Amino acid sequence: MEIIMAEKMGFCFGVRRTVEIAMKIIENKEQNVITYGPIIHNEDLTNYLKQNGIGYVLNVDDVDERKAEKVIIRTHGAKREVIENLKEKGVKVIDGTCPYVMRVHRIVEKLSKDDYPILIVGNKDHPEIIGVTGYISNVPYFIVKDVEELEELRKQGKFDKIKKIGVVTQTTEKIEKVRKVVNYLMDFIPEVRYFKTICYATDENQNAIHKLAPSVDVVIVIGGKHSSNTIKLYEIAKSYCPRTYHIQNEKDLKIEWFNINDKVGITAGASTPDWIIQNVVNKIKEFERILERGEIYEKRS
Amino acid sequence: MEIIMAEKMGFCFGVRRTVEIAMKIIENKEQNVITYGPIIHNEDLTNYLKQNGIGYVLNVDDVDERKAEKVIIRTHGAKREVIENLKEKGVKVIDGTCPYVMRVHRIVEKLSKDDYPILIVGNKDHPEIIGVTGYISNVPYFIVKDVEELEELRKQGKFDKIKKIGVVTQTTEKIEKVRKVVNYLMDFIPEVRYFKTICYATDENQNAIHKLAPSVDVVIVIGGKHSSNTIKLYEIAKSYCPRTYHIQNEKDLKIEWFNINDKVGITAGASTPDWIIQNVVNKIKEFERILERGEIYEKRS
Repeated sequence: MEIIMAEKMGFCFGVRRTVEIAMKIIENKEQNVITYGPIIHNEDLTNYLKQNGIGYVLNVDDVDERKAEKVIIRTHGAKREVIENLKEKGVKVIDGTCPYVMRVHRIVEKLSKDDYPILIVGNKDHPEIIGVTGYISNVPYFIVKDVEELEELRKQGKFDKIKKIGVVTQTTEKIEKVRKVVNYLMDFIPEVRYFKTICYATDENQNAIHKLAPSVDVVIVIGGKHSSNTIKLYEIAKSYCPRTYHIQNEKDLKIEWFNINDKVGITAGASTPDWIIQNVVNKIKEFERILERGEIYEKRS
Repeated sequence: MEIIMAEKMGFCFGVRRTVEIAMKIIENKEQNVITYGPIIHNEDLTNYLKQNGIGYVLNVDDVDERKAEKVIIRTHGAKREVIENLKEKGVKVIDGTCPYVMRVHRIVEKLSKDDYPILIVGNKDHPEIIGVTGYISNVPYFIVKDVEELEELRKQGKFDKIKKIGVVTQTTEKIEKVRKVVNYLMDFIPEVRYFKTICYATDENQNAIHKLAPSVDVVIVIGGKHSSNTIKLYEIAKSYCPRTYHIQNEKDLKIEWFNINDKVGITAGASTPDWIIQNVVNKIKEFERILERGEIYEKRS
């Protein structure tokens, strides 16, 4: 078996930054610190933080109950009103919002000020997008996951009076999907103002798996099951390599997925800690030794 | 033979408007009127105007020589400084600029004011584009005919420092080509502000030939040999129908192009007067009668 790591994978700058904030707090043995929402979309990491005293709340109102003194805003960010409400409660807010997401907040604020309706390409239930909508004011906005949803909204007449539009995307979007949306808007809206808000790390991880997936037999994509960017890595890999599996950590690996002569490609979402990637590699090597010894021959045949 | 006319073809709103201005002048027997540049890209029409006293100049300086009192700005428009220079000479300027082209002038003026570098998709030698550049001030601008030219400029480092860009197009551009340009810009420029400046008539004429060309044996595209929109109609038709011919008027038609059982599709550029279209149809019908009588049997076999 040969294990080939994608050239770029795992923690992005924004995630690393927020996780370091939390790790520092653990190191300093600070008490009564929580995060607003799971800090990143990785259960192993959020469990680790919880075990070390940093739990999370999903609502501002739950902050009192936890007697929190400090609240870390998750990497995905939050609505402006959430931050304001937390401050009103007198807790110290540590803004862990990814700087690339903050840039989206600033863009939609500016578009609102300039009176541009806004189209967001992304998942309307994702905390990043919920956060972004909290910075839009006094202009109509639409959230679509793809061009088909946009076509549907157009059919409903939602764009009949719209002469200009600002377009932003979830930072983890796939450029191919966004292009389709922009190309479609170009047909019927006189001014389409597109902002590239896909973050470079997402681009890089996606490009790396684009490169790797066609040349391997199996791809293992490591990342949280709710992690948008991980799901996108999975989709890209799967389109080249049918034997692609999305796992959260080494416990999800199955020896049946592998053959002794396979080339195995590895990638990981931006919220996957390095130690999980390492555990996965170790486990696959363990499988390799088992396969070499022929120990599970009967099971596999 | 069956002659099928494209659902939309010929004079657009802007051309019709400018030509009507000139026709009115002829009707009123006004003297000393010229146009700045050929009023539209159609030799038959410019010859007709010339025979009726309305010639054209290519330079502002030639106006004096002609003792012109009124100057009609051609449909394609002109640089602002041309209009200013004409006014300084004391001649009356009649602005025949197509309102869709005027809109492009206003957009690039606004982009200049807002400090956006500008990309123009179009033909740098076309009077429309030369006119548009005359409304850009204090910002860098680039003219590309397609995505390949844009890639070349990027390789030369022209976009290295550019963080935002406004995009306008020649009003006669093909949307497919413009999409490629915008898609490419989306890769590396953080803000791409696209303005749909392709005019609806161009769209309609192009859509109509898209629809018609696949179902006929021969396509005749009528229009001036310098007419951008006519050339584009030709390219579209040719991509579906190998027996596509671009002619300026009925005199260019050749009987060898036709077979007795052909379906013949007809389209015409936005600067083609209706009477030329009618002459072409009449000539093809004449060919049909000749073919039916078998008169040129020997020549063809």
